[in-house]
Amino acid sequence: MFIQEFRIPEIIFGRGAIEQVGYCARRVGAEKVFVVTDPGVLDAGWIDVALPFLKQEEVDYEIWHDLTENPKDYEVEQATRAYIDSKCDAIVAIGGGSPIDVAKAVAVMATHPGTIHDYEGVDKITNPLPPMIMVPSTAGSGADITQFAVVMDSKRNLKMILISKSLVPDISITDPLILTTKDPQLTANTGMDALAHAIEAYVSLAANFLTDSYSLTAIRLISAYLGKSVASKTNLEAKDAMAKASLLAAIAASNALIGAVHALAHQVGGKFDLPHGMANAILLPHVMEYNYPACIERLADIAEALGQPAGGTNLRERARGAIEAVRGLARELGIVESFAGAGCLYSEEVIHTLSANAVKDACLITNPRDAGLTDICGILSRAFSG
Amino acid sequence: MFIQEFRIPEIIFGRGAIEQVGYCARRVGAEKVFVVTDPGVLDAGWIDVALPFLKQEEVDYEIWHDLTENPKDYEVEQATRAYIDSKCDAIVAIGGGSPIDVAKAVAVMATHPGTIHDYEGVDKITNPLPPMIMVPSTAGSGADITQFAVVMDSKRNLKMILISKSLVPDISITDPLILTTKDPQLTANTGMDALAHAIEAYVSLAANFLTDSYSLTAIRLISAYLGKSVASKTNLEAKDAMAKASLLAAIAASNALIGAVHALAHQVGGKFDLPHGMANAILLPHVMEYNYPACIERLADIAEALGQPAGGTNLRERARGAIEAVRGLARELGIVESFAGAGCLYSEEVIHTLSANAVKDACLITNPRDAGLTDICGILSRAFSG
Repeated sequence: MFIQEFRIPEIIFGRGAIEQVGYCARRVGAEKVFVVTDPGVLDAGWIDVALPFLKQEEVDYEIWHDLTENPKDYEVEQATRAYIDSKCDAIVAIGGGSPIDVAKAVAVMATHPGTIHDYEGVDKITNPLPPMIMVPSTAGSGADITQFAVVMDSKRNLKMILISKSLVPDISITDPLILTTKDPQLTANTGMDALAHAIEAYVSLAANFLTDSYSLTAIRLISAYLGKSVASKTNLEAKDAMAKASLLAAIAASNALIGAVHALAHQVGGKFDLPHGMANAILLPHVMEYNYPACIERLADIAEALGQPAGGTNLRERARGAIEAVRGLARELGIVESFAGAGCLYSEEVIHTLSANAVKDACLITNPRDAGLTDICGILSRAFSG
Repeated sequence: MFIQEFRIPEIIFGRGAIEQVGYCARRVGAEKVFVVTDPGVLDAGWIDVALPFLKQEEVDYEIWHDLTENPKDYEVEQATRAYIDSKCDAIVAIGGGSPIDVAKAVAVMATHPGTIHDYEGVDKITNPLPPMIMVPSTAGSGADITQFAVVMDSKRNLKMILISKSLVPDISITDPLILTTKDPQLTANTGMDALAHAIEAYVSLAANFLTDSYSLTAIRLISAYLGKSVASKTNLEAKDAMAKASLLAAIAASNALIGAVHALAHQVGGKFDLPHGMANAILLPHVMEYNYPACIERLADIAEALGQPAGGTNLRERARGAIEAVRGLARELGIVESFAGAGCLYSEEVIHTLSANAVKDACLITNPRDAGLTDICGILSRAFSG
């Protein structure tokens, strides 16, 4: 029996949608919410925007923002203690992928014994989690939608991925206005993260009728609007489009699952503390090259969504066009083309260790082409030198 | 502030998926489920298929099947009494739109005072409902997905529509194998219901980036597979495709909402006790004709999804092609072309009364072209004579 499963949060989308946060908190039955955010979002004033709407619904709150990019296991522990001490009964994250991942990890640790490491992998979460409301501040991570949470293991120096339908939040509130306070580099990196989600979902072995059209629509929107969004903080049409692309790509990625790009990005990003979107952007064309024999037709569809001509040349040439289009887009956005270019120090031992960990990453299961240790070492070596 | 909202159940899809019903019941915390079904599904043996999976998870059950097509308010009352008397704590519907609508109405009446009539219209449901798991037995009603419930008002002789996000079930389990036991006429009618959902959602004023691609994919699948599914009980490829189309169309219709076809079908179907899909099939081309000036580009997209040539002729001609394609499909399936042909007795008074009620139906709000009483009378008169 082959069963497809599809689960997403309730989605609220629109300029000014952050104002719904209080009403949503009341709807999930919250009396006191644990608000996880990051210093950037705090400085930009978005917490000040949100709080009156919590007060209006008489929902109490505790704010927590002691986290770094690529949040660490010990930060999750501290946050969990703060959640429990403050007697909150629901979680609201307002921020990028990092605070949302911490929020999910707190939800797990507040309701399960042991440490977050015990829940790495697929379907390890057994108890119901507290209600979660996510307000993403970037157009890319998709953590507000997905069944994934990623936390740094500070001892092993790698990113652990937790996969469970229980990690799908209750409500995702996407307000494109929040994107206007993000700098161009972050916009570029997170946009490439969304592109990696859409492309990996579309070529995934678990791609299906509920995810395919969302993947392609996301790719079309990113192709048309990511450059515009990076170019201008105030182009609202571009912010709307990228917020939509991020949502669509995340729905696809969470339900079709992803592949070797993410399996490797978790390792390289963990080892060198790189922005996740940048790691994905560097890896994406190399993984597409590797996957090419397994998904030629699908790469041709992706090429068309990326604005390559639909007819004229043959299928294989069109499929190659997708890889070139992704490289071209990253170049236009000024993203470095190799891990060496990003300042990561190459060594054969590093390549081997990171690849050995990548082979164990749950994301690799749905990659369209089987990839053993040697294959993964090859991809990673090429991504180092560009 | 313009906010889009999107909410769907968790979806489980695949041949044999009905076997998941016990596990799902346990996951929603059920100890005893109220199983609503209809005599046809019971006779076909699907309840016998499902029960062992409830027993396996030690979930107790009570079966209820005393309902008619276009279920009546007094049937909801009887079912609610049975639900309360049997001390159930969750609801499972296995059947077509009728048992699923009854299941939703029971969920409302088990948790709210008054009668079901008090909850007609938009957002009247205030209390949390018991968990609901729906297993649709037809590819069309979409009630397993939507935020709608439709119940006959036996005094006023019309169908009441209830719209509320609370009516979105918790889990929808779609098993295409169940479709193999349905007769061709029911397959045709329910398939046209799915087509009406997809077309009305695509031209709806509330259509959006999360619903558009689902509407078009549903239309493509229906165009390619409805004839095949009507032609053969055992064409599993066609059953899979129609089950997918029904899901996609229902997700779109529930979240983009629908229009004049459904506003009118609720009245005519209520008055003459017609199959809902047949009423929609008769009305659909007439409403498309009426809506034409408001949605020419979108009708051209629909025409393409229905297999009409994409280029060559001009936009307006292509849009007209959508209306002709819908007429042609209904004709191929042997569906009558007018209410007169379906045996409904025409009178000016009937037209006026049904139209006056249709103008008050909540579905009309998102119809792309404003429609007053005279307009609606005109559409209905044309649909009577064909």
